[in-house]
Amino acid sequence: MLRQEKAAQATALLQELDLDCWMCFVRETGEHPDPGVDLVVGTAVSWNSAFIFARDGSRIAIVGRYDVENIRSTGIFEEIIGYDADMSEQLIAVLDRLAPRQIGLNYSLDDTSADGLTYGMFLLLQQMLAKTDYPSRFVSAERLLSRLRARKTASEVERIKESIAITNEIVDEFGAQIRPGVSEAELAEFVHQRFKERGVDSSWEWQYCPTVNCGPDSPVGHVPPQKHIRVEPGQFIHIDVGVRHNEYCSDLQRVWYVRREGETELPAELRRAWDTVIKAIETGAALLKPGVLGWEVDAAARAVLVDAGYEEYHHAFGHSLGRACHDGGPLLGPRWPRYGDSPYIPVEAGNVFTLELEIFTSAGMIGIEEDVLVTEDGCVFLSELQREPFFV
Amino acid sequence: MLRQEKAAQATALLQELDLDCWMCFVRETGEHPDPGVDLVVGTAVSWNSAFIFARDGSRIAIVGRYDVENIRSTGIFEEIIGYDADMSEQLIAVLDRLAPRQIGLNYSLDDTSADGLTYGMFLLLQQMLAKTDYPSRFVSAERLLSRLRARKTASEVERIKESIAITNEIVDEFGAQIRPGVSEAELAEFVHQRFKERGVDSSWEWQYCPTVNCGPDSPVGHVPPQKHIRVEPGQFIHIDVGVRHNEYCSDLQRVWYVRREGETELPAELRRAWDTVIKAIETGAALLKPGVLGWEVDAAARAVLVDAGYEEYHHAFGHSLGRACHDGGPLLGPRWPRYGDSPYIPVEAGNVFTLELEIFTSAGMIGIEEDVLVTEDGCVFLSELQREPFFV
Repeated sequence: MLRQEKAAQATALLQELDLDCWMCFVRETGEHPDPGVDLVVGTAVSWNSAFIFARDGSRIAIVGRYDVENIRSTGIFEEIIGYDADMSEQLIAVLDRLAPRQIGLNYSLDDTSADGLTYGMFLLLQQMLAKTDYPSRFVSAERLLSRLRARKTASEVERIKESIAITNEIVDEFGAQIRPGVSEAELAEFVHQRFKERGVDSSWEWQYCPTVNCGPDSPVGHVPPQKHIRVEPGQFIHIDVGVRHNEYCSDLQRVWYVRREGETELPAELRRAWDTVIKAIETGAALLKPGVLGWEVDAAARAVLVDAGYEEYHHAFGHSLGRACHDGGPLLGPRWPRYGDSPYIPVEAGNVFTLELEIFTSAGMIGIEEDVLVTEDGCVFLSELQREPFFV
Repeated sequence: MLRQEKAAQATALLQELDLDCWMCFVRETGEHPDPGVDLVVGTAVSWNSAFIFARDGSRIAIVGRYDVENIRSTGIFEEIIGYDADMSEQLIAVLDRLAPRQIGLNYSLDDTSADGLTYGMFLLLQQMLAKTDYPSRFVSAERLLSRLRARKTASEVERIKESIAITNEIVDEFGAQIRPGVSEAELAEFVHQRFKERGVDSSWEWQYCPTVNCGPDSPVGHVPPQKHIRVEPGQFIHIDVGVRHNEYCSDLQRVWYVRREGETELPAELRRAWDTVIKAIETGAALLKPGVLGWEVDAAARAVLVDAGYEEYHHAFGHSLGRACHDGGPLLGPRWPRYGDSPYIPVEAGNVFTLELEIFTSAGMIGIEEDVLVTEDGCVFLSELQREPFFV
């Protein structure tokens, strides 16, 4: 059902965007997945294949002989054309029939999940259509893909919620493992075991999902947890973790504080940092609603840290979350060149974002990350904001 | 070690091909893997990243701040440059220092595993370098990637052998499950259970690895095994199966015959088809050696079927096998447009291929597939040619 929902959305978006035709042109998608195809087709093909959605609602697949049955079984395409040696003639015949003014292709400078077309496949398509004028009608389908990806349907939101629920349970179990002497690597291995036992994938690359940081000497970023760094009293223990379950992802960060002998609360310096992190997340969340631009949300959260005298974070305040952990569409990010246009895409109802930032303290990293859904007039938390550190 | 071996091969290939520089330009490789990066880097990155190999042996990575440690830990790159907001300046500085006459990029019309660069990333790279003349030096790195991918090192061949050994064991266990009344879907589910118990992935997409075909009414191609098609006496039972273990793949097809009451051997019509399949595979294998073109090998095998009055197969006689089941480099395939240049790439020692074809009979499909390694003067079977059907 989910892919039927997304295919129906795609047709509606062609009308909304006044685009005559959207074409995914792919091969060997098991090795080279195309995020657009994943969204509306949901199964792999081997040979060069074209999946065509037209504004009049027609959906046509041109695939190699051995993929015909597989594509038929998806129920998405009303017309499936198989071929053996060469698909060019069939492709031209379909385009002649549709006579599209524009042909939207899956490429984008900024949005990874709208950029499934390889450069070689682009050149091949140009070559196949060299005797026609269709190459002059190629346009980027990024606006369609961005909205298709980011406007989550109800069943997509349900799947994300399920992944968050599983992650919450694993986070609780993880917390029970934290005690002085345990290494980051051992803590991460515990999480990997839980992933395997539950049959879920990591939300991002296995070797650094989870990342675990014990105290101030832990390296930060996409780094596997370390064997030689161990839990000690007076440290923050930080985990960044998510699962991919039923094709949809979660992404959360949680923090524990390991009390020293006699401590009952956070030392004042750490308390101030903690409260600043929470205030920054709440400030960003309060701004998040349809029509806002991602950079505006990021700037507000960022300013809370800077105004309190802390170093600003070196990433976006929030990214889309869905089939991919870093999903497509709008970004709640700063106006840095490397983010391209994505911080300028207006937020819409149905978007799901992470809200995340961190402060580095003398006791280690306070990094909090929540997952939220944009509604008609604001946003709701799909995870429960961690207002206080968990104490060990 | 394997990636160090491949990185050393890459430098040697730059010299062999008189190419000054090879650059992989990628982002979010967890979602958008680039086969070139998988080969020599072996870990994922999030932000826009450049991995540069120069003919003088230098290896430089430009990656986002949070990927620096991760890339450092691979030990592949002597120089790792991190960035926050924009990588353009660092990239131009590196290119100015190397002053390459050509910059090889990962795109190819025909070779999927040499085509990791997306069209959006290509445009982004052009934009970043718009004020320089480096875009005019872009060339396809497909010859480098094809050879790098297809010239298997000793440790790559060992890994493929391990995957074949695991597959052989699962095939034996599968054979013990074949009895009248069992469905294709049940047989496939048995294999999936064995995959899970052994902790191996399917060599290609899970839902149709294995494919299982019982008798003549089974749909052929990339189709999940059917619940309503069951083993009956007088049928051929066919499996196409492979595992991905330790990052390398196997790919085998095996056939059983379920004897009818009183039968001790294959009926004559089926025997003739069987012998023709084996003869065709042996004919192709006898031609396979360094310097031969893939289409010549395919044509010889194909002619055996046609000369015996059978329908020719609608695919290539053999594909490269390695990190991907359909790996890059030369193809033992017909000169069809859809295969592009790949049947014209000379075979080299160290290449690993499948040899595969099938005949459809009144009792079902006889499809045999073996995995072979090209040596200095011929080829050796890494799997053991199935000369006779297994009998049930």
